[in-house]
Amino acid sequence: MIKTKQAIYLASKSPRRRKLLEQVNLVFKVVPVDTPEVFGKKERPANAVRRIALEKLYAAKEIIKDGIIITADTIVVIKGKIIGKPLDNNDAVRMLKQLSGKTHIVYTGFSVYNSVTDKTITDYEKTYVTFRKLNGEEIKDYVKTGSPLDKAGAYGIQDDYGAVFIKKINGCYYNVVGLPLTKVFQTFLRII
Amino acid sequence: MIKTKQAIYLASKSPRRRKLLEQVNLVFKVVPVDTPEVFGKKERPANAVRRIALEKLYAAKEIIKDGIIITADTIVVIKGKIIGKPLDNNDAVRMLKQLSGKTHIVYTGFSVYNSVTDKTITDYEKTYVTFRKLNGEEIKDYVKTGSPLDKAGAYGIQDDYGAVFIKKINGCYYNVVGLPLTKVFQTFLRII
Repeated sequence: MIKTKQAIYLASKSPRRRKLLEQVNLVFKVVPVDTPEVFGKKERPANAVRRIALEKLYAAKEIIKDGIIITADTIVVIKGKIIGKPLDNNDAVRMLKQLSGKTHIVYTGFSVYNSVTDKTITDYEKTYVTFRKLNGEEIKDYVKTGSPLDKAGAYGIQDDYGAVFIKKINGCYYNVVGLPLTKVFQTFLRII
Repeated sequence: MIKTKQAIYLASKSPRRRKLLEQVNLVFKVVPVDTPEVFGKKERPANAVRRIALEKLYAAKEIIKDGIIITADTIVVIKGKIIGKPLDNNDAVRMLKQLSGKTHIVYTGFSVYNSVTDKTITDYEKTYVTFRKLNGEEIKDYVKTGSPLDKAGAYGIQDDYGAVFIKKINGCYYNVVGLPLTKVFQTFLRII
């Protein structure tokens, strides 16, 4: 679907992002980058995810000299407050209780860079996600699976429990998984 | 997640529905049923999918004597017109051209039956799906993969091409795949 002779690199440690790009038949290599994900107190979510995606890109460019690089960052925002990944199981339980019965917003910022043209496109997508009311037992059972720990907002919409926690979404589904595929695809077409 | 000593049967030929129920760790057997999917000219979509889900249930009850049975039917509605599965590749191209750049509605009706209590719950879910503008080439390329042929509306949101055709959805994602997991899960809890 994406045709280029250049090497493509996904600079991300997220196994979800790798799977999503594989789903659309992209041929690419994974290069994990380590960038602190710290948010300014009054920073707007759409700015925060684009800034962090860019910071990941700068880190990736230190390692990768030629090719197309893609980076991304996903956060959850509830009542104007940015939520990243939970610190531990207790934090995950607290986060899921906060999301229960309410609508939050998932933001993913992403950067795509082409070393040949030296062009960078940075963009973001947001999706509204509405949880049904959860009970304490199912939250506990889900946290026990270990899955919430490496996920912003402590859930994966593609998980067993995650799938039956969500009543509706409004926006791009794949954005909630970790990468807004349609927008990323269209960005690729503009940059290759 | 669902605990019962009764046998559970998915009466459906759809491999997507099987995968979705596996995703939420349900233990079940698949029993394919053959029911004609014919829609009345002035039949409302929400009624049509529930009627067909029930017809599939009646067919399934001829084969399965004891246990919990689940059936479902998915259709696509654009400009008030019901669209089922395409007849052939040309029909698939025509359907995708019709969906391009527009919002349509996906309806899934489902029935859950418990032979012990003789109770049946029939319900439906609807999700709004907005396609970006597609070009003729990508429609042709997608139809060539063969995937559109067995799908209502000639696309799968979980497909390679399907994933990058859709700009946004409003409602349950899994409903678009073929079974509204959250609603089905809650129905199971009411019936077991």
